[in-house]
Order: sequence, then C-alpha cells, then structure tokens
Amino acid sequence: MGALKGRDLLSLADLTREELQEILQLAAQLKAGTLKPKCEKILGLLFYKASTRTRVSFTAAMYQLGGQVLDLNPNVTQVGRGEPISDTARVLDRYLDILAIRTFDQHDLEAFARYATIPIINALTDLEHPCQVLADLQTIQESFNSLSGLTLAYMGDGNNMAHSLMLGCAMAGINVRIASPPEYRPLDVVVQKAEAIANGKTEIIVTTDPIVAINGAQVVYTDVWASMGQEALAETRIPIFQPYQVSEVLLSHAAKEAIVLHCLPAHRGEEITDAVIEGPQSRVWDQAENRMHAQKALLASLLGIA
Amino acid sequence: MGALKGRDLLSLADLTREELQEILQLAAQLKAGTLKPKCEKILGLLFYKASTRTRVSFTAAMYQLGGQVLDLNPNVTQVGRGEPISDTARVLDRYLDILAIRTFDQHDLEAFARYATIPIINALTDLEHPCQVLADLQTIQESFNSLSGLTLAYMGDGNNMAHSLMLGCAMAGINVRIASPPEYRPLDVVVQKAEAIANGKTEIIVTTDPIVAINGAQVVYTDVWASMGQEALAETRIPIFQPYQVSEVLLSHAAKEAIVLHCLPAHRGEEITDAVIEGPQSRVWDQAENRMHAQKALLASLLGIA
Amino acid sequence: MGALKGRDLLSLADLTREELQEILQLAAQLKAGTLKPKCEKILGLLFYKASTRTRVSFTAAMYQLGGQVLDLNPNVTQVGRGEPISDTARVLDRYLDILAIRTFDQHDLEAFARYATIPIINALTDLEHPCQVLADLQTIQESFNSLSGLTLAYMGDGNNMAHSLMLGCAMAGINVRIASPPEYRPLDVVVQKAEAIANGKTEIIVTTDPIVAINGAQVVYTDVWASMGQEALAETRIPIFQPYQVSEVLLSHAAKEAIVLHCLPAHRGEEITDAVIEGPQSRVWDQAENRMHAQKALLASLLGIA
Repeated sequence: MGALKGRDLLSLADLTREELQEILQLAAQLKAGTLKPKCEKILGLLFYKASTRTRVSFTAAMYQLGGQVLDLNPNVTQVGRGEPISDTARVLDRYLDILAIRTFDQHDLEAFARYATIPIINALTDLEHPCQVLADLQTIQESFNSLSGLTLAYMGDGNNMAHSLMLGCAMAGINVRIASPPEYRPLDVVVQKAEAIANGKTEIIVTTDPIVAINGAQVVYTDVWASMGQEALAETRIPIFQPYQVSEVLLSHAAKEAIVLHCLPAHRGEEITDAVIEGPQSRVWDQAENRMHAQKALLASLLGIA
Repeated sequence: MGALKGRDLLSLADLTREELQEILQLAAQLKAGTLKPKCEKILGLLFYKASTRTRVSFTAAMYQLGGQVLDLNPNVTQVGRGEPISDTARVLDRYLDILAIRTFDQHDLEAFARYATIPIINALTDLEHPCQVLADLQTIQESFNSLSGLTLAYMGDGNNMAHSLMLGCAMAGINVRIASPPEYRPLDVVVQKAEAIANGKTEIIVTTDPIVAINGAQVVYTDVWASMGQEALAETRIPIFQPYQVSEVLLSHAAKEAIVLHCLPAHRGEEITDAVIEGPQSRVWDQAENRMHAQKALLASLLGIA
Repeated sequence: MGALKGRDLLSLADLTREELQEILQLAAQLKAGTLKPKCEKILGLLFYKASTRTRVSFTAAMYQLGGQVLDLNPNVTQVGRGEPISDTARVLDRYLDILAIRTFDQHDLEAFARYATIPIINALTDLEHPCQVLADLQTIQESFNSLSGLTLAYMGDGNNMAHSLMLGCAMAGINVRIASPPEYRPLDVVVQKAEAIANGKTEIIVTTDPIVAINGAQVVYTDVWASMGQEALAETRIPIFQPYQVSEVLLSHAAKEAIVLHCLPAHRGEEITDAVIEGPQSRVWDQAENRMHAQKALLASLLGIA
C-alpha cells in the first residue's frame, strides 16, 4: 500500500485498478479485525455542506485508528470568509496530517490540494463522491465475492454519485448502466473518462430507459432526486423522475440475486419505495457501515500506516 | 454491574433499586479514583436542544474513560432533516458504541432505542431527565451518607426534573413532595409510576402548598420556571410561581441540616434567591460536578467495562 | 517551568521576562521534537468570536500532547445565555483541566479567572492577544537567533495585536514602534504598561508616521484594518489606513534583512500587498505554524507537564 502514502484522492480516477483493489482488500481486513493499524495523526474535516454519514463515518474511522479529528465547521471558523483558499490551505497544512473536504466546486478542492502538502480527500463535491463508491464496491464484493463481470444499474439523477460509480465500476470491471431523464444525464466528460478507464473491457451505457438499464443487473443503485441545495426543485422533479423509482415492479427486471444500494438519506416514495429499501434485497445498512471501513482503509493508506 | 451491559436508559424506571444503588456506588468510586475503568469506545451525542452541563459532563466523562466523543449537532448534520428516526438510528448504530440523546418527545427517544442495538441514554426529554437525578442522588448521598428515609421537596414547575426526581426518590427510599401551581403539576401517569415503585414504603405528595412540601425536608430542590423553548412564557409565569421561590424565608421551614440543589442554569431572583444559591446550604457546584461522575458510572455500566 | 503551573495567562504582562524566555525555549524544543511531554488532560475552548487559527492550533497542540479538547461553542451551549459568568466558570471548573477563552471584554475574561481554579488562557480579547505574540516572538527568534536589540514596526490599527506586541517586545528586549492614524492609536494605559516593563532599556514609540516607524526595522508587522465585528467599517477605514499599507515601497525603508509578519487572515491590497505577503521576506506561514508550537509550550507549562 506504500504507493498511496502522501497522495490525494480528489477523484476515483486518481487511483489505478491495482490501488483500488488494495484499498478494498484493506477495508475487508479492517472490517474483519485481522489488521489494526494505529497512528497518532490528526484528520481535519472541512465540510461546506451538511453531512451525517460522511462526517460520522470518517470520525469513527479515525478514532478507531487511534487518531484525532478536528472538525473545521465553516460556521464556526473563518474558513471561507473571504480568505483565499491558498491561505487557508497553507495554514491548515501546518496543523493537520490529512484533510477531508466536502465542497461544491471540484476546482476549490483542487486548489486546496495544490496549496497543501498533506493528503486531501474528496468527501463529496458536485462532480464526484469517491469515498461513497469505495464503500459501495466493498458492499458489492461482500455480496458476490468478486466484482469483475457484474452489472450495476444506476437509476435517476446523473449526479456526482453517477459519476463516481461510472469511474469506480469501470476500474473494478463492473458494467455500468446509467438511466436518467434526458436533462439529467451525467456529464459527457465523465462518461468519456470512464470509457477510457474501461478501455472496451466493460460496458458503460447511458440511457433514458430504466428497463434497458436494470435488465438483468446484479446491483441496483439509486440516490435522491434532488441533492443538497436543490431541495426547492424537488417538487418539479417528481414527475420527471417517477419512471426511475426503484419499486418492486422495476426491481423485478433485475437479476434474481440483485442487491439494492442507496447512499442515503432515502426519500421513500420518491426514488425508492419503502418495500424495496426495507426488503430482502436491500443492503443499505451494510453499505452505510462500510463507509467507515472503506474510509479507514483510505486514511490508513494515505497516512502510510497500512 | 454486568446486568446493565448493552441496555438502554430511557427512564429512571428502567433500573431496579439494586441497579440504581450499583450505579451510585460506582459513581462514588470513580469520583474517589479508587476505580479507573478504561475503554476505546465512541460515545455519540445527539442533542436537539442546547446544553452546557450535559454535553460537557458527558464528554469529560467519556474522555476520562479513555473513549472518544462524536458530537452529532443537528445543526451541522442532516439528522432530523426529514430522515426518519429509524434510518438515522440504524446508521448511527453501525458507527457508534453508545449514544446519548437530548430531544423533546420521549417517543422519539424510544424510536431510537427500538432501531439501534447500542445502548441509548436519555440525556433529557420533555418527560424525564434521569442522568441529572443520578447526579442528584450522588450529591444527597455525599451529604447524608445514606438516602433511605430522607425527604426531598421540589419547588416549582412539575416538569421533567420533577418527574425523574419522583421516580428516583421512590427507588432510593426518599420521600418526595412536589409543590407546584395548580396548572403546573407533574403528569399523573408519572406520579402513578412513582407510587408503584414506592409501593407504600415512602410517601409521594403532590401539593400546591410550598410550606407543606418543604416542612422538615432535608433536600430542597428547584429548577427554572420556564424551561428551554418556553422562554417567551417566563414573564407571565413569574407571579404564578413566586410563592415557590426558594428564599431564605421559605428555606427556614426545611430541616436545619437541609441542603439546596438546583440543576442549573439558575435564574437568581426567580426560582431561587442569590442568598440561597450562594449560601452555606447550597450544594449546586458539587451537584454539577457529580453529573460527570454519575454519567461516567452510567457509561461504564452500559458499556460493560465496570 | 514549574513556576507557571496552575497560573492564568490573561495578559502577556502576567509573565516575567524569564518566564517568557522559558516558554519560547520550550516552544523551540517542542517544534524540534527534542521534548515530547504527554498528558491526559482536557482543554476547553470557549470562543465567543469566530476563529480558525487559534481554535485549530490550540486543538492540534493539545492532541499532540495526548490530551483532549472540548469545544464549548456558545452557539450550541447555553454558555452566555443569561447565565452569569460566575456560574459558568464554577461549573466548567469541575469538568476541565484548562480553559482558553476568546471574548470581547477583558473584564469577562478576568471574571472567569476569578471564579475558576483551573488555568485560564486569553485566546484573544479586544484588549490583548498574548498567544499570537508568543508565536510571533518564536518566529522572530528563528529568523534572527535572538530577540534582544531588534526593532519591530507595527503598521496600522492600534488594536489588541499592537497592545500585546508592545508588551511582548518590551519584555523580550525588542524596540517597538507603532504607526497608526491619529484616531487609532493604542490605548495609553497599555503604552504606559509597556514602558514600565521596558524600563528605559528599549524604546516604545507611538507615531502617526509610517516611515518613522519602519525605518531600519528588522521586523515589519501588520494586521487587518477592521477586526472581527468591525467589517462594516472597513470601507470607510481604507483611505485613513492607506499610508500604512505594507507595500514593497514602504518595506524598502526597513532593514535589508527585515522579515514581514501578519497574524492572518490577510486582506491583500489593504493592509498588505500580495507581492509582500507572497514575497521572500514574508514569514507568515511559519508564524501561523508557530501558533501551535507556542501554545503547546504554554499549555504544557500551565499544566505543569514540562
């Protein structure tokens, strides 16, 4: 794992296939308790958007590693109050050992990485959510004992989750099909990046047809239709996204052994029905737990302690 | 103490008399330093109402146990933002080892306990405040070397403090007298529960007459007249509650050796006079300190490390 | 260092010259890693004003000492909600081992110190900012290998920074010249206190002429023109403070080997130009890092662990 020491994770595409496999293997060992790396390092959390799972899972992971966490809530600090990122980054760099950032613009994240020498982790931007996908892949691997050759269908908004899933699946050898309303397709630039990673070995399909996407898939994934900051748009989006709702009917088109994932929080009756999220194919609570294990593996790798 | 491992404390009535005694004994040992249990566990704090003493005393207690604390401030998380409690509880359950919750409705607390496997602690609801009463009983025991046979008079609002004091005193063998204005009596259902616990061995009196209540009592207790969220009502309540003010005159009716307790914050000149809270019978600072020791005992018991 | 154990640091003037030297020496040892004191104590942070560097540097310092930090954000506690300082102080005193306070009025800080037995640290008031000056002196010492006989020129608002620099420089044997607009001079009472400390051995000059102040100085220091809470005044202050801007032109009057310090956040184009803060004479990032080392030395001294 030494190869990751001191690096940033701004995008899943920052990893090679081998590095991704190593993180997932480490995550499994950490969850099993067969490996217990320890450190006395300090993780900073700088979250410009609200967060439950990410903040809590990163904090619990770092505590379990023996480290400390410094919550740089912009509401109680001057971070972002007119001070340029270059200044904030250079100062935090002197106090912290590693920094996870949740922000809107991927460019702001990249600016932090440019000015800080410590590892910077993308804890969600409008463009990507790589830490979630590490946990997703861990959950898929637990269910099917391998990743290569599976098909994942993502239903709904072609957002940061869709982006990171395309990149992560391409890297892991999973076919990925994104079904979105025409106006909500994932960005072409990310599709192309995923295609370059897949290199023709796995398929990447972007479609408007939910049945085409879910047909025979082993993994069915969905996310809220209106992400944080878009709540006002939720009402108008409901009719547009309705055909992509993961219901028992839609799910019947997937493979019999299919599992259902959701990065939470879930809006029952919108992107997923109560019957499905509470049903036998749902793995959402294991998936949530794996945030902690996968991020612990990432922290340990970037800190060079595992 | 093994009997408490893994359990919840949603109400004082969740404890048996013996378990209450064990927690108080453990609290005394922890305060004396004769026992120093250690763990590497994570305590979550989920407080929907502001808190100083509870938050700080729980945090200090957990730190002294060698554990970590994760402050789930709803202002900076999505907790409570439309996500059902069943989802939040199941997710936090995967990250934390124990969770203390301050919320309005006791039913919300019970919902958390239903969906989480980890111990859930009532850190104040509109119905009860059991952790405060653990500290109160520890303070009374320090002053009188025993609890059984004493009389506690509570003056003022028949709120969550009155409720938990009735239950805790009944369990500890202390006679309890609640003096409240007619409209501010404690809930009948709690009075009945306390009477069931007392089982005729100690008296539980609810009266509107402050003199009847305080007469000869060894412990005089009061709380603010308008609790958190009711500040707008404070003005109108002053004339109604004035007769219940713990002043030197009223206190002269108590036993000579009586001690005065207040769970703080205190509003001098309202429910208590400056002369009384700063006077020789006041034990409010020891009582505040005991929050830490009593909660440390509770944490250690529920975590099974003492 | 035993002499500092258990004491408060409300003002730099609370230290003797020897004690200041000891803290600076300890800070250098901690930065070099030749001394690694450890404790299991709890530091409270009670900040009534926003803070990045102070909060983060204190937290990182305490973590590195092996201790814990309890962030008493007044927004999420009842601290300051009508409860008298005497009550808050006596309660926190029971839970914490040491407490750093950022508040407006120096008298509030002094009230805390009067009612708490644990060490109280001034983490910035309207009157003083001693922790910043400890880091500043450490940075100056790193640049010049000694302090005595140097000259520091402070350009701009005669605020808490100017105050603490006057006291700290007088104590360290550094000549200090404050250049401020007539209406923004430092308080006479602080100038007089600094003169009493200097005792004629070093000069303390307060002038309105920036050239007089900076001429030949080895250390050039500036701060924002409108401190926290005064942002609305920033516009009107710009023309008044313009002559005090630390530009390459003004800096050319300083000593050739002069270093430039700024306590951050910096407003480029106002009190300092981008060319100067990013230029070869700037030591602002080292200075920011030294907040952590200097405060770690202070914590270790007051806790009696170094």
